[in-house]
Amino acid sequence: MKLPGQEEFEASSAHENVPSGELGSGLGPGPSPDGPSDTDSRELGVPKDPLLFIQLNELLGWPQVLEWRETGRWVLFEEKLEVDAGRWSTPHVPTVALPSFQKLRSLLAEGLVLLDCPAQSLLELVEQVTRVESLSPELRGQLQALLLQRPQHHIQTTGTRLCWGSTHQSKSSYDEETPLKEQHQNPLRQRLPPGAEAGTVLAGELGSLAQPLGAFVRLQDPVVLGPLTEVPLPSRFFCLLLGPPMLAKGYHEMGRAAAVLLSDPQFQWSVRRASNLHDLLAALDTFLEEVTVLPPGRWDPTARIPPPKCLPSQHKRLLSQLREVKGLTAPHVTQPEDRHRHGPHAPSPELQRTSRLFGGLVQDVRRKASWYPSDFLDALHPQCFSAVLYIYLATITNAITFGGLLGDATNGAQGVLESFLGTAVAGAAFCLTAGQPLTILSSTGPVLVFERLLFSFSRDYSLDYLPFRLWVGIWVATFCLVLVATEASVLVCYFTRFTEEGFCALISLIFIYDAVGKMLNLAHAYPIQRPGSPAYGCLCQYPGPGGNESQWTRTRPKDRDDILFMDLGLINASLLPPPECVQQGGHPRGPGCHTVPDIAFFSLLLFLTSFLFAMALKHVKTSRFFPSVVRKVLSDFSSVLAILLCCGLDAFLGLATPKLMVPREFKPTLPGRGWLVSPFGANPWWLSVAAALPALLLSILIFMDQQITAVILNRAEYRLRKGAGFHLDLFCVAMLMLLTSVLGLPWYVSATVISLAHMDSLRRESRACAPGEPPSFLGIREQRLTGLVVFILTGVSIFLAPVLKFIPMPVLYGIFLYMGVAALSSIQFMKRVQLLLMPAKHQPDLLLLRHVPLSRVHLFTAIQLSCLGLLWIIKSTPAAIIFPLVLLGLVGVRKALEWVFSPQELLWLDELMPEEERSNSEKVLEPEHPFSGSDSEDSELMYQPKAPEINISVN
Amino acid sequence: MKLPGQEEFEASSAHENVPSGELGSGLGPGPSPDGPSDTDSRELGVPKDPLLFIQLNELLGWPQVLEWRETGRWVLFEEKLEVDAGRWSTPHVPTVALPSFQKLRSLLAEGLVLLDCPAQSLLELVEQVTRVESLSPELRGQLQALLLQRPQHHIQTTGTRLCWGSTHQSKSSYDEETPLKEQHQNPLRQRLPPGAEAGTVLAGELGSLAQPLGAFVRLQDPVVLGPLTEVPLPSRFFCLLLGPPMLAKGYHEMGRAAAVLLSDPQFQWSVRRASNLHDLLAALDTFLEEVTVLPPGRWDPTARIPPPKCLPSQHKRLLSQLREVKGLTAPHVTQPEDRHRHGPHAPSPELQRTSRLFGGLVQDVRRKASWYPSDFLDALHPQCFSAVLYIYLATITNAITFGGLLGDATNGAQGVLESFLGTAVAGAAFCLTAGQPLTILSSTGPVLVFERLLFSFSRDYSLDYLPFRLWVGIWVATFCLVLVATEASVLVCYFTRFTEEGFCALISLIFIYDAVGKMLNLAHAYPIQRPGSPAYGCLCQYPGPGGNESQWTRTRPKDRDDILFMDLGLINASLLPPPECVQQGGHPRGPGCHTVPDIAFFSLLLFLTSFLFAMALKHVKTSRFFPSVVRKVLSDFSSVLAILLCCGLDAFLGLATPKLMVPREFKPTLPGRGWLVSPFGANPWWLSVAAALPALLLSILIFMDQQITAVILNRAEYRLRKGAGFHLDLFCVAMLMLLTSVLGLPWYVSATVISLAHMDSLRRESRACAPGEPPSFLGIREQRLTGLVVFILTGVSIFLAPVLKFIPMPVLYGIFLYMGVAALSSIQFMKRVQLLLMPAKHQPDLLLLRHVPLSRVHLFTAIQLSCLGLLWIIKSTPAAIIFPLVLLGLVGVRKALEWVFSPQELLWLDELMPEEERSNSEKVLEPEHPFSGSDSEDSELMYQPKAPEINISVN
Repeated sequence: MKLPGQEEFEASSAHENVPSGELGSGLGPGPSPDGPSDTDSRELGVPKDPLLFIQLNELLGWPQVLEWRETGRWVLFEEKLEVDAGRWSTPHVPTVALPSFQKLRSLLAEGLVLLDCPAQSLLELVEQVTRVESLSPELRGQLQALLLQRPQHHIQTTGTRLCWGSTHQSKSSYDEETPLKEQHQNPLRQRLPPGAEAGTVLAGELGSLAQPLGAFVRLQDPVVLGPLTEVPLPSRFFCLLLGPPMLAKGYHEMGRAAAVLLSDPQFQWSVRRASNLHDLLAALDTFLEEVTVLPPGRWDPTARIPPPKCLPSQHKRLLSQLREVKGLTAPHVTQPEDRHRHGPHAPSPELQRTSRLFGGLVQDVRRKASWYPSDFLDALHPQCFSAVLYIYLATITNAITFGGLLGDATNGAQGVLESFLGTAVAGAAFCLTAGQPLTILSSTGPVLVFERLLFSFSRDYSLDYLPFRLWVGIWVATFCLVLVATEASVLVCYFTRFTEEGFCALISLIFIYDAVGKMLNLAHAYPIQRPGSPAYGCLCQYPGPGGNESQWTRTRPKDRDDILFMDLGLINASLLPPPECVQQGGHPRGPGCHTVPDIAFFSLLLFLTSFLFAMALKHVKTSRFFPSVVRKVLSDFSSVLAILLCCGLDAFLGLATPKLMVPREFKPTLPGRGWLVSPFGANPWWLSVAAALPALLLSILIFMDQQITAVILNRAEYRLRKGAGFHLDLFCVAMLMLLTSVLGLPWYVSATVISLAHMDSLRRESRACAPGEPPSFLGIREQRLTGLVVFILTGVSIFLAPVLKFIPMPVLYGIFLYMGVAALSSIQFMKRVQLLLMPAKHQPDLLLLRHVPLSRVHLFTAIQLSCLGLLWIIKSTPAAIIFPLVLLGLVGVRKALEWVFSPQELLWLDELMPEEERSNSEKVLEPEHPFSGSDSEDSELMYQPKAPEINISVN
Repeated sequence: MKLPGQEEFEASSAHENVPSGELGSGLGPGPSPDGPSDTDSRELGVPKDPLLFIQLNELLGWPQVLEWRETGRWVLFEEKLEVDAGRWSTPHVPTVALPSFQKLRSLLAEGLVLLDCPAQSLLELVEQVTRVESLSPELRGQLQALLLQRPQHHIQTTGTRLCWGSTHQSKSSYDEETPLKEQHQNPLRQRLPPGAEAGTVLAGELGSLAQPLGAFVRLQDPVVLGPLTEVPLPSRFFCLLLGPPMLAKGYHEMGRAAAVLLSDPQFQWSVRRASNLHDLLAALDTFLEEVTVLPPGRWDPTARIPPPKCLPSQHKRLLSQLREVKGLTAPHVTQPEDRHRHGPHAPSPELQRTSRLFGGLVQDVRRKASWYPSDFLDALHPQCFSAVLYIYLATITNAITFGGLLGDATNGAQGVLESFLGTAVAGAAFCLTAGQPLTILSSTGPVLVFERLLFSFSRDYSLDYLPFRLWVGIWVATFCLVLVATEASVLVCYFTRFTEEGFCALISLIFIYDAVGKMLNLAHAYPIQRPGSPAYGCLCQYPGPGGNESQWTRTRPKDRDDILFMDLGLINASLLPPPECVQQGGHPRGPGCHTVPDIAFFSLLLFLTSFLFAMALKHVKTSRFFPSVVRKVLSDFSSVLAILLCCGLDAFLGLATPKLMVPREFKPTLPGRGWLVSPFGANPWWLSVAAALPALLLSILIFMDQQITAVILNRAEYRLRKGAGFHLDLFCVAMLMLLTSVLGLPWYVSATVISLAHMDSLRRESRACAPGEPPSFLGIREQRLTGLVVFILTGVSIFLAPVLKFIPMPVLYGIFLYMGVAALSSIQFMKRVQLLLMPAKHQPDLLLLRHVPLSRVHLFTAIQLSCLGLLWIIKSTPAAIIFPLVLLGLVGVRKALEWVFSPQELLWLDELMPEEERSNSEKVLEPEHPFSGSDSEDSELMYQPKAPEINISVN
C-alpha cells in the first residue's frame, strides 16, 4: 500500500518544516517523525531529502547591457524583488498563469535534460549545458560568457542597510568561483537548515538566439556554484530557459513556473529520483493534475495571497494519490484521523486503569523516577533564564493579587504574606515531587471563590475560621487520597468541553462581578460629595485652655441634621485637616471629617486604567508595531506593567487611595495566631467531623480543577516526552492541602494559564525557518529547575513587603477584572454566544457552522446559558457553598444532551464521551447524512493543531 | 484595434456590476458607461448581455433513492450548500482542480451540443437532450423521468426560518411546469437585476449508464423551466454531465467546473455568440489560457478565498488579449491610465482658465442655472428624508460643539446661539446659491483656530473685538472677490496631498492639544484635594444675634496658614454647605468653601468616556454584530450618542460639573450689543485699514480650506453630473463672510467630512446585487432641498437652548478630542508615520512600499514631520497668527521636494504638480528603471477607486 520510497517522502515533507502537529498528531502518541531537528531524524534512521532553496535569476536589459538579476526566490513561499523599492516582498503563495507551465513543459521536452550531471564547478556546468548541437561555436562562447557573468543579488541585511550583491566592475570573471562575503553574510543563510541545497532557474530573453534553449540539470553531487546563488549553498538543480524575445514577459513567467515547480515537495521528491526525461515530464504532469485553478474573471492574478496558517498536509496528498492508484475511497482513509481529532481527550497511556489500589500512583512514580536526573540536566539552557524571569513576575503578580483578594475575602485571616509564603512552599515542593513539574501551583479562582464562601459561612455561624478550615483541609486530603487510591483520575474523560467551559464561565463571571462589586463598595466607603449633600465641614477642636468647654461636647449630637443647624457657640477650634488636628492634640469634629474627597472617582480611574491598559498591552502581541521581541515582552508582562503604571499614577497624585495591606514583620496576618493552626480553637469538637461535608464539596472542586488543567497541559500537541502523572499530581496536591491547612496558608491547585505560559516560555523551536513560515515547534524543555527557582525567588520576595504597600487596591481590582474578561473571552462558548448577536450573513466561516444547523447551535448555546444562569442563582442563595456539586452536575447535563443532539452534532459542538464513542463508533465512521458530499472539503482544516483554548483556572 | 463585438463585451462586463470606478475613471471625465443602471445603458444604446445566475443540481443517492439537489450556485462568486448545516456558505472565489476542466472538455467534445435550441419547456428540452443514439429506449425513458424529477432547493428566507424547495411526495410530476411559490418568494430574486437569465448544470453519477453522457444546450429564447432553478428566471443555458460512478466525486467537480466556466464573463460572452462546438471549445481553451494556478504543496485546495475587494477589470483582460493578438506591449497601453490615477487632481473642466475678469464665475452661474429647477425636483425621493435627519443631527452636534468652543475661545463674544443662528442663515443661503449645493457649511477647524488667535491678539492689544472682526471680515470678502475675479481657483492643482495632509495634521493636532489643555484647565479650576492640602473645612457663619462678633470678622485673616491655626473663638456658626448657608442668611467661611470636590476626576471620566465611546461606536460599522442598519445608525450617530450617554451619566450623579453656557433669551451672547456690530466701537479708525493684514492671512486660510474641500467633493469617483462651481462657491463664501461679520456670527467655510457624509447619505446604488459583491454605486442625488431643510431645522433648533444647558463641557472636549484623533488617523501621512515604528517585515503590503525604497519613504515622512514641527513652533510663538502664511509655504516646500525626490517617487508618495507633469510627461510614460519588470503586476490595484481619504476640515 505504499508508494516506493514513501518513508523518504514522509521524511522529506517533514524536513520541509511543515507546521507542528499537522502530520504527527493524527498518527498517535509518542515522538513523531516530523520534527525537523537532526536528532529526530537520526533517531529514526530514515534518509531525508534536504530542503531546497530556489532562486530565479532573470536576464534583463536586452538589447542594451545584459545582466542577470535575482528577481524571485522560493523556500516555501514566493518572495519577489520589488525592483523600484529595493526590497523583498512579503512571502506569498505563488500564483502562475497556466500557459506558463505548458510552455515550460514543451521547452523541457525539447531541451537538454541532464540527470546526475557530474560537474564540479560553475564552469564545468556551463560547458555541459551549452554542449547543444543547435548552437554555433561563437554563440556558444557568447552564451558561456553570459552564464558565467556574476548575477546581482539583493541581499537585505537585518538592519535597514541595503547592500547589493555585486557591482558592475567585476563582470564576466571566470575564475571567481568562491562565494562572496555578502553571500556569506546573507541573513537568509541562518534561516535555512544545515544541509539545505539550492536550485537556480535562469530565464530571460536573448535576441541572438534563433530558437528557445531549455536545459534542466540535476547535479550528481551538490556543488557551491560561486556567486550564482544568493546564499552560498551547494546547488542541486539548475534550469536554463532562454529564447528570442517574446510577448508578455514569457520567460519571466516560465522561469517562475519552473521555480514554483521545483519548490513543490512532491515534484522535488520525484525529480530527485527521476532517471530520464520521461520521469521529469511525468512529475510535471502529476503536479498539474493537482493544481487548483482560479478563474480569471473572479480573481486578479496579480493579487498576492498571504501564506495560509496551515499548509496542506503532504500526508493527504499522498493519500489522494494512493486513492487514485489503488482505488481507495476517501472516507475510509481519512475518517479515523478526524475522529482522533474530535474524539475524547487525547488518549494518554497514563490514564489507563490498572485496577489495583494506588496502581496508577505507583506507575506514575515509576515512570517519573526514570526521568528524574534529566529533569535537572535538561534545564541547562539560556532559554530557562528568561523563562524564570517571566514566570517569576507572573507568579508574584498572582501572589499579590490573590493575596490581596484573599485578605479582603477572609477579613484578614490570610493576606499577602501568607500568599507569598504558601506559593513559595507549595510551588517548590510540587516542582520537586510532582508528575508534571512544568505545572505552576496557584491559589486559583475556583478555590478562592470557595474559600470566600466558606469564610462567610463560618462567620454566619460564629465559627473559629482557621481551625474549621484545618479540618476541611484534613478531610479534603483524605478524600483526595481515596481518589488517588481508586484511580479516579481516569474519569477525567467525562469532563468534556461543555463541563470545562461551564466551569470557566462561572468562575470568570464571579471574578467580573466581584471586581465591579468591590469598586462599588469603594464608592460607598468614600462617598461622592454632591452639591447639597451634608458631608461638608470639619472643625478641629482642641481641649480648651482653661476648661473652655464647647457646645459640641456638651450636647453630643447624634443626628446629622442637628449638627448642620446647631449653633456652635463657644469653640476653641481651628480648620486643620483631621490628621494634623490629631497630631496637634485636637479632635476632628463635624460631618466632613470622615469623608475623603476625590477618592471614589480616582479609584474608578485607576480601576479602569489598569483594566484597559492590561487589555491593550495583551493585544500588542498581534499588532504590527515594534520588533517581535518588544511586543512579546509588552504582552507577556501586561499585568505587571499595568500595575506599575497605575502605582506610578497614584504615587504622582499622592491621594489617600486604599492600599494593599502588608504586614510589617514576618508573622501571620491574623493577629494573635502562631504559624501552626490549633486543631480546635473555639470550635466544638464535632465540627471536625462536620467539616467533612464542605470538604466533600471542595474535593470535587479541586479534583475537577486539578485534573482538567492536567489534561490540558498534557495534550498531545505539546509533544511532552516524559509523560504525565495524573495520580501523582493529585497525591501531591492532597499532601500540600494538608500542609497549607495546618499552617493557615492559601490552598493551591495547578493553574492552567500560568502553567501554559511556563510551557510556552520553554518551547524548543527550529531556528532555521523559511520566509513566510512560522517557526516549527520541536517540543518543550521538560525539567524541574525553572519552577523551583521561580518559587525560591517568590519566597525571597516576602521581603518586598515595604514596596507592596504602595499598590492601591483599585488597581488590583482592575487586574482582577482583566483576568475574568480574558478568561471569558477565550472560550468557544462565548464565541457561540456572540453568534447569537450576529446576522447569519456576517458570521465567520467556522467549521462548526458548516456542519451544524444554526438553530441547533443556538439551542446548544441556550442550554449552556441556562445552566450558567442556574449556577449563578445557586451561587447567590445561602446554598452557595454547594456550587461544586452543581458544577459536577454539568457532567450529567452533558450526558442528558445526548438525547437532544445527534452524536454528529455533539462532535462539532463539544467532544464525545467515552461510552458514546464505543457504542456509536460505527455511526461516526460513516457520514451521518447519506448525501453529505462535503467531508473531504474541510477535512484539511481539521488537521490544524488545537490551540489551548480554555483558561480553565482564572489566574 | 477592436475585437469583433467589443462594444457589447464592454457593456456586458458593465452590467456585471463591476465595482464603481474600476473601468470608468481611467477613461476620462463624463458619464461613464459602466453604471449598471438601465437608464445608463439606454442612453448609450448598446445591447447588453443579461446577468447569468448559475446553479448546480447534483444527482445524489445512487444507487438507492435518486434525487436532484442544488448544491452550489454562482452569480459572481460561488456559494456552496452546507448540507449538514442547512445553509449557504459565504460567497467565495471558486477554486477548481485543473483536471476537472480537462475532463469537462473531453466530455463536451464527445457529447451533444445544441446551440439555439428551440425548446419551449422543460419537457421539450429533456426530449431534445435525450435524443442521443447511444441510449436504449428504456434508458432514455428512465433518464427523461429522472431529468423531470423536481430538484430540491435550499431556499433561505431572510429570517431564520428555513424552507426547503420541495418535498418527496411530489416526485416526477411531468406537468408541473409552473414555478413554485417558494421559488417566487426566494429573497435571492430581489438581488438579481431584471432581465437576468439562468443557467443550470446537472451533474451526477448514474449507474445504469454505460458511458458518460454530456450535453450543452443554449436555448434560443430563454424559458422558465418550471422548478428546475431555485429562482424562477428564464433559463438560457443547460448543461448535463452524467456518467457511471467514478472516483473522487468526479462529476461533482466537473459540474462545478462547468458552472465556474459559465460564470466567467468572457466565456459567457463567447458562448452566447458561439455557432458550433468548435467555438465552444475555443472559448473553454481561452478561459484555461487565462486561469491562475495555485501549487498544491502551498495551498490547500479546500480553503475558501473571500471575494476580492476589487474584481479584475474585464477591460484589462481584453487588453491582454488584444496584446496577444495584435502584438502590443504592456507599458504603452496601461501607463497612460496609471498616470491618470496618480496625476494631479481630477481634471475638472470647471477649472479651465477663461482669462476674463470674473469669467469663471460667469461660467459657473451659467452652468448651474440650467440645473436649478432639477435641483428641487430631484429631491423627491424617500432617501432624502433619512439624509435630512442624519445631516441635521450632525449639524447641530457641530453647532453645539463649535459654539461651545467658540464661546470658550472668544470669552463669550460668540456662543451657542450665534453658532446655531449663523449655521442656519449661512448654510441655507449657501444651499440656495452655491455651485455645489451638496456642500454643508460649518465653522470648521482652521477658521476656529484662526478666530481664537485673532481674539487673543485683540485682547493683548485691548481692542474692541467684534468691530475689529467686522473689518477683518470686510477685507476677507474683498480679497476673496479679487480671487474670484482673477480666477485664482484654478491654482488649486498646486495643493497636492502633501499640502492637504500638512494642513489637516496641524489642525488635528491643535484640536487634540486644545482638548487636553482644556481638561487640564478644569483640574486647575476644581483642584484635587490631596491629604494635607489646606483646602479643608468650611463654616457657615451667621451675623450673630446680638452682635456676637466672632474673631473671624475681627481679624480678617489673609494668609491660609493663619486661618488654619487660628483660634476660632466665639462663633455663631454652623456646618451648612455654602449654598444653603447663603440661603439661610449666613456667610460661608474657611478655605474649604470654594473647592468643589470630585469634579476634577468626574470631568476627566466624562471626557474619557465621551471620547472612547464615540471611537468605539465609530468602529461598530465594521464589526460583525447586529444587522447592518443598526450598525450604520450607531456608527453615523456616534457623536450624538456619546454626548447623550455622558449627559445621562452626569445627570444621574448630579454633580456640579461645568456646563455649556446657553443664553436664556434670543439675544447676542455678549451682553450689551445688538445684532448689528458697530463698525468702529472703541477702536481707532485706522484699525479698519490695519485689519487688512490679518484679513490677508485669513483669506489664504479660507481659500485653501474652501478649495481643497471643493476639489475633494468634486472628485470623479462621486460621478457628479451637474458640475462643480469653484468660483461661484468662493464668491458665496465671501458674501457670507460679510454677512456673518456684520452680525457678529461665526465664519463659515465648506466642511469636508460632513459634506462627504451628506453625499454618502444620498448615494444611489444598484439594489439588485449578487451575493458576495458590494452594491454598485450609480451616482448621487444632487439637489438643494436636503441641505435647505437641514438648515431650516437648525434655525428652529435655537429653541433647544433649555435642553442644551445640561451638556457638561468635558463631554464636548471629549468629542473635540475624538474629532482630532479621527481626522489625524485618516490621513496617509499618519500611515507613513506608523511605518517608522514597524519593522520592515511586518509592514503592510502597500503599493507605495512596492515602488519606493523604504529609506526614501521615511525621508519624505521625516520632511513632513519637520514641516509640522515648524508649524507647531510658529503656532506657539506670539507670531502664531501668521500660520496661514506658513501653511501656504507648504506648497513651496512641496515644490522644493522635486529636487530631492524623483517624479516617480513623488507620484507614489504624493501627486504630481502640473508643470512637472508637462515637462516630465515623457519620463513618466516610460518606466523609470530600465529593468523594471513589475508594472503590469500591480497595475490592477491602481484601478481601485480612490476613497475620500482626508478629513481636511476637522468638523
